[in-house]
Amino acid sequence: MTIIKVKELYRNKANFINKKIEVAGWIRSVRGSKTFGFLVINDGSFFENLQIVYDDSINNFEEVSKLSVGTAIIISGTLVETPNAKQPFEVKAENIHIEGKSSPDYPLQKKRHSFEYLRTIAHLRPRTNTFSAVFRVRSLIAYAIHQFFMERNFVYVHTPIITGSDCEGAGEMFRVTTLDIEGDKKVDKSKDFFGKETNLTVSGQLNVETYAMAFGNVYTFGPTFRAENSNTTRHAAEFWMIEPEIAFADLEDDMILAEEMLKYIINFVLENAPEEMKFFNDFVDKGLLDRLNNVVNSEFKKITYTKAIEILQENNDNFDYKAEWGNDLQTEHERYLTENVFKCPVFVTDYPKDIKAFYMRLNDDGKTVAAMDLLVPGVGEIIGGSQREERYNILVQRMKDCSLNEEDYWWYLDLRKYGGTRHAGFGLGFERAIMYITGMSNIRDVIAFPRTVNNLEF
Amino acid sequence: MTIIKVKELYRNKANFINKKIEVAGWIRSVRGSKTFGFLVINDGSFFENLQIVYDDSINNFEEVSKLSVGTAIIISGTLVETPNAKQPFEVKAENIHIEGKSSPDYPLQKKRHSFEYLRTIAHLRPRTNTFSAVFRVRSLIAYAIHQFFMERNFVYVHTPIITGSDCEGAGEMFRVTTLDIEGDKKVDKSKDFFGKETNLTVSGQLNVETYAMAFGNVYTFGPTFRAENSNTTRHAAEFWMIEPEIAFADLEDDMILAEEMLKYIINFVLENAPEEMKFFNDFVDKGLLDRLNNVVNSEFKKITYTKAIEILQENNDNFDYKAEWGNDLQTEHERYLTENVFKCPVFVTDYPKDIKAFYMRLNDDGKTVAAMDLLVPGVGEIIGGSQREERYNILVQRMKDCSLNEEDYWWYLDLRKYGGTRHAGFGLGFERAIMYITGMSNIRDVIAFPRTVNNLEF
Repeated sequence: MTIIKVKELYRNKANFINKKIEVAGWIRSVRGSKTFGFLVINDGSFFENLQIVYDDSINNFEEVSKLSVGTAIIISGTLVETPNAKQPFEVKAENIHIEGKSSPDYPLQKKRHSFEYLRTIAHLRPRTNTFSAVFRVRSLIAYAIHQFFMERNFVYVHTPIITGSDCEGAGEMFRVTTLDIEGDKKVDKSKDFFGKETNLTVSGQLNVETYAMAFGNVYTFGPTFRAENSNTTRHAAEFWMIEPEIAFADLEDDMILAEEMLKYIINFVLENAPEEMKFFNDFVDKGLLDRLNNVVNSEFKKITYTKAIEILQENNDNFDYKAEWGNDLQTEHERYLTENVFKCPVFVTDYPKDIKAFYMRLNDDGKTVAAMDLLVPGVGEIIGGSQREERYNILVQRMKDCSLNEEDYWWYLDLRKYGGTRHAGFGLGFERAIMYITGMSNIRDVIAFPRTVNNLEF
Repeated sequence: MTIIKVKELYRNKANFINKKIEVAGWIRSVRGSKTFGFLVINDGSFFENLQIVYDDSINNFEEVSKLSVGTAIIISGTLVETPNAKQPFEVKAENIHIEGKSSPDYPLQKKRHSFEYLRTIAHLRPRTNTFSAVFRVRSLIAYAIHQFFMERNFVYVHTPIITGSDCEGAGEMFRVTTLDIEGDKKVDKSKDFFGKETNLTVSGQLNVETYAMAFGNVYTFGPTFRAENSNTTRHAAEFWMIEPEIAFADLEDDMILAEEMLKYIINFVLENAPEEMKFFNDFVDKGLLDRLNNVVNSEFKKITYTKAIEILQENNDNFDYKAEWGNDLQTEHERYLTENVFKCPVFVTDYPKDIKAFYMRLNDDGKTVAAMDLLVPGVGEIIGGSQREERYNILVQRMKDCSLNEEDYWWYLDLRKYGGTRHAGFGLGFERAIMYITGMSNIRDVIAFPRTVNNLEF
């Protein structure tokens, strides 16, 4: 007999009621008496559990009654409705096959565990309600992103993970090497695997721009790395990033794309994981569903950085860091703008060139660049993007100003020599998006096996 | 006016014929005369090009006639049918806006370039027919894989890239470090970013097994790394891999999944990239479409390794390496089996335990393990998988036999202590699959910016 998934039972109940079925899963709880008992199992296909009722007509009644939480079992029996119970149905077991036993020292007994503790058993935590929900939603968001771009005929590009250049100086990098660094001899860079110094990528953007100049609309979705010694709830050394890049497009087009994408992802998750989202709203972040519904139903606002600074300065007394033209916005500023001033997502545009990367397009004022950050209530910045500098001479000048070596970027400059176009793009930190959509507040709790400073297990 | 994509014109021609439209793209060729001319452009949205006809009624006729290949232009004009020409339609230009000029030294003039040469301009090669086709198909295969698993309710897991253990000893690893390895002082491992030695992953399998024991059906799709000094057409230091893992499942289920997945991907590409696939069949690999159609229409065969050796030994005179029980199959053996003996894809199962990894399930004979390799005509092995050893004691013994340190695998062993189940999985090298489906014969030509020994540019 084919094993039926619990999700199937919930979604297509009518096909199975009063029929003989086989189900399989891991025991979440056991309640036994002398002649009958209840098992609650979860099979991982669905957020909800399935109740199994059994009695001493099964051939291993004694053994089943003593099973530990975590045990894997396969049950054959009949699915019956339970109109007076919380759950819609249960399985009346005729046979319970013990697939793999657990033990009384199983770390996930039926009680609440702290997220901190669960991080130490990251190999088991997806078996809990919270992490089952987090990692299913993570998977769904990933799919929503691919579907969004595929529906729009974007080409998915795998930009390289091992890279030879720091590119934009976006942060501290990890070095990648096959040299014997523990020996006594001084290392010889030219003997390294690639014949030179190599690092883990901090962004695929410069690489993917080359593909935007061939396919028009492209995106990356892959891991990126920062070797920053920051022990916060929002930083990890290894995280995934989505970076679309669009040709024959300007900052306005870029913002339209970002808004459509974010709304698409949220709608996708609300539709495809209603049980998980209700759980997050009930137990993790009370206002979550209201906040997300507000985002999908509002038209995102726009304001220039210069105008934003004026508004913020009226409230400078209440900020730890005073807002001032020329400085980057702090999270407190960002949240004030999106939560108090606009009460909805807002794009801040046209930042001072000196606080932004060299590749962002210089505006006609000579002082600002065509950059945009998307701020959302509850978080602050979630997306950062820009129109790219397509003018060869201005780009070279900006690289000089930033002390970058032109020769390292010969191929990037080539794009401006051979049919350059207006183009733009943005980056979305995948884990930031998951945190935003689930309400989870620590990045370690949305990555299966997180890597942070001094912390690498599993 | 909104820029219309060339793909739209081809797919929904009727909506645009005799209408005013705006299109944009890069010039592939220019043919001008004194009073009129033709431009062929490609906009990256579609494999096929679009012809533009213009005459001296446009205001920049002289300038347009002198444009170099590669120039980016935006054209407004009327789409008209061309019943007597090769192409179905062309645009009669009323205005040609020059978005970004190219120059006469543009490296991609309208002639054939060798793949070797094009690798040196990897930032421009997606603008050629071949690489436009390769990287669009790559993107489609990636999407097909996600769609296949999502339709089956699998959870997509991002296993870690930076890892603390060699895991299965699958190959040479890259070390990841933030230590100053070029200084004079001996490095202190404990001062490294993670407080210990770390490497780039060679496989996500062991990590993803933990999620299979929670969600039932899961898969990974991410980059993996091998620091092997092998300069072949089939090896790269950085490549992507797909690794599904299924619980309450055995080797038979694993083979069913592998067969369904491969057929699904091929069908998806045949349906969604017919122009590209025709191009590959015509210009890259003559028998390609026949071969792929044979795969999707045949039922894959199965044979044990032991039986395969018997068959191969009858033909040993014709092999460079003689087939012998206990040795791994060579590519010549694999291709003989799938091309000459079976003439269709074939699973070889139950390999000697000594040539396979420690985690593969020991068969009752004590000599072989429940492994499977899928061999396909034209390539040989394309998928490798196994049922995993779920029995704690046997797994520990196998680890001892392989000189692995139990303590390093405490979390992997935990899976066998707390509700272990029969489970199985396999690995598909993403680039191998692309090569197989496109007929491209060098892995460097299916990776945007390939990384191989002594070779890292861009």
